[in-house]
Amino acid sequence: MTRRKLSIGIIGFGPFSQFLAKTMVKQGHLIRATSRSDYSAHLGAHFFRDMEEFMGLEHDVILICTSILSVSEVVKSIPFHCLKKPTLFADVLSVKEHPRQILLQMVSFLKFEWCRMNKSSFKYLILEEWVGLADWLEVPEDSDLVCTHPMFGPESGKEGWKDLNFMYERVRVRDEDLCSSFLRVFESEGCKMIEMTCEEHDRLPAESQFVTHTIGRILSEMHIKNTPIDTKGFEMLVQVKESTANDSLDLYSGLFIHNRFAKKQMENLEGALQRVKGSLEARLKEEDGRK
Amino acid sequence: MTRRKLSIGIIGFGPFSQFLAKTMVKQGHLIRATSRSDYSAHLGAHFFRDMEEFMGLEHDVILICTSILSVSEVVKSIPFHCLKKPTLFADVLSVKEHPRQILLQMVSFLKFEWCRMNKSSFKYLILEEWVGLADWLEVPEDSDLVCTHPMFGPESGKEGWKDLNFMYERVRVRDEDLCSSFLRVFESEGCKMIEMTCEEHDRLPAESQFVTHTIGRILSEMHIKNTPIDTKGFEMLVQVKESTANDSLDLYSGLFIHNRFAKKQMENLEGALQRVKGSLEARLKEEDGRK
Repeated sequence: MTRRKLSIGIIGFGPFSQFLAKTMVKQGHLIRATSRSDYSAHLGAHFFRDMEEFMGLEHDVILICTSILSVSEVVKSIPFHCLKKPTLFADVLSVKEHPRQILLQMVSFLKFEWCRMNKSSFKYLILEEWVGLADWLEVPEDSDLVCTHPMFGPESGKEGWKDLNFMYERVRVRDEDLCSSFLRVFESEGCKMIEMTCEEHDRLPAESQFVTHTIGRILSEMHIKNTPIDTKGFEMLVQVKESTANDSLDLYSGLFIHNRFAKKQMENLEGALQRVKGSLEARLKEEDGRK
Repeated sequence: MTRRKLSIGIIGFGPFSQFLAKTMVKQGHLIRATSRSDYSAHLGAHFFRDMEEFMGLEHDVILICTSILSVSEVVKSIPFHCLKKPTLFADVLSVKEHPRQILLQMVSFLKFEWCRMNKSSFKYLILEEWVGLADWLEVPEDSDLVCTHPMFGPESGKEGWKDLNFMYERVRVRDEDLCSSFLRVFESEGCKMIEMTCEEHDRLPAESQFVTHTIGRILSEMHIKNTPIDTKGFEMLVQVKESTANDSLDLYSGLFIHNRFAKKQMENLEGALQRVKGSLEARLKEEDGRK
C-alpha cells in the first residue's frame, strides 16, 4: 500500500507536539499548527497565529496537543464553523477518559453543525443520542475520533520511536482509510501499537505512571540523596526521584485531576502507609511490653 | 605482617553469622559458636549448646550476631563471670547506636568485674564514670569494643566480599593489634572499609535502607505489579518492592524500633505525602474555581 500523505493540523504546539511534528514532516506529511503562544515557522511546520484562519484550511487530521489541564478550555474556543470538511480528530494526552469525553461531545456537536448547514429546520434536533434520526436525515459525512497516547517523549524517543509503546482507541471511525493512514505515522516508525479502551488506559497508568510520579515527588520532598553506604534498592529510588523531577507539576496535577483511577491510587497509597506504620507500632508496643 | 590466627567466639549462629563463619574458617581462624537454637558442628565451626562452657573458653574476640530485637535480652543472659581473659567484643547488627550502648554498658560492667576479682573491698566503686579511680587501682586489663556492620549478606556476598561495604567504629580499643587483626578478616577479603561513628551510620541508613524498606512495603501493600504499558521508573519500583519482600519483618521492625533516625524518617515520609497531596488538592480547587 502506498503511503498516503496527510495534511495534519496541530492545536497546541509545545515541546511534545514539536517533537512529534519533526517525524511527521520527515515522513512527508503537511504539518500546520496553531497555539496560544507564537512559535512561527518551526521545524518545517507552518504556524498560524490566527485560529479562524487555521480552522479554515483543509485538514485531514486535527491533532489536539494541549496540556491535560487546558484541553477543555481550548476545545471550547475552537471556531468549528470555519471547518471546511469532516475531519479525523485525534489527541495525544497522557490521560484518556477525560479528552475522550470532551472530544466525543465535540464530534457530536460537529454532527449537529453539519446537519444545520444541510437541513436548517432541524438544526437543534441532531444530538448524539439520536443517531437514528441523524441517519434518517442522511447526514452525509461525519467527523471521526481516535484517542491516542504516544508513551514516550523528546527524551525517551530521541533515538527514534522503535519499540516504544503507542496506545490508541478508535472511538468513532467511519473513514477507515484515513484512520489507518494516521496510525501508520507511528506504526511505520516501529512503535509497539497497543489498542485498548481509554478506560483501561487510565486504570493502568494510575497504577504505574501516577504512583511513580507520586513516590518520586515524595522522595523529592524528603530531600533524599545518595549516601556513602547505599544499598542497590535505594540507588533505584534516587533514580525514580530524578526522573520525576523533569516532569512538570502541570502534567502531574493533570494526571491526578482528570484520572479518576489516580485519585483512588492516592487513597490506596495513604492506606498502605498507615498499615505499614501500624504494623511497626504494634511491634514496638509488643517490645515495650516485654521489658 | 603475618596474619594472626584468632579464636573467635560467636554468640547467635543464624544464617548471617554462619555465612561470616565460613570465610573465617577458610582464613584459618578458630571458630566456636553458641546460640539459643542448636546448630551443632557446622561449616567447620565448633558449636556449644551450653553458654557457661562456651564463655569459659579462651576467646580473643566475642562476636555478637543476634537479631536487633533480641540483643538486649541475649547480652543480659551472658554469664560474664565465666570469662577467662579480657576480650575484644564486636557486633555485626544492622543498627549501631543501640548495640553500641548495650555493649558499652557491658564493657564497663566487665571493668568492674575485673576489679572485683583483684581488689574486693572496692567492688562497687569502679564504674565507667570513675576512670581515674580505675586507673589508680591499676585495673590491669580491660575488654575492648568495636561495633561493625558488614553491609552485605549471603545473597550479595555469595561471590566473595570484594568491594562490599564494611562499616566500623573503634568504640574502645586498647589492644590495637587484636582489633587490627579482627578488622583484617574483612579487609583481606577486599571489603571497602568505612570508619564512621555509630550515630552517623544510623542516620545514613535511616535515609536509605529504612526508607527503601518502607517504600517497598507500601508498594507491596498496594499490590503493584507490572502492566503492559509500564514506564522505566515504574519498573524500578517493582524491583524495589521485590527486593524488600525477601527481608524479614523482624529486621524491618528492628530498624524502626532501635534507630531513632528511622522514626524521624517515618514522620518525614508522612509529612512529604501530605504536602504532595496538598499541592494536588490546591490545584484541583483552582481548576474547580475556573469552571
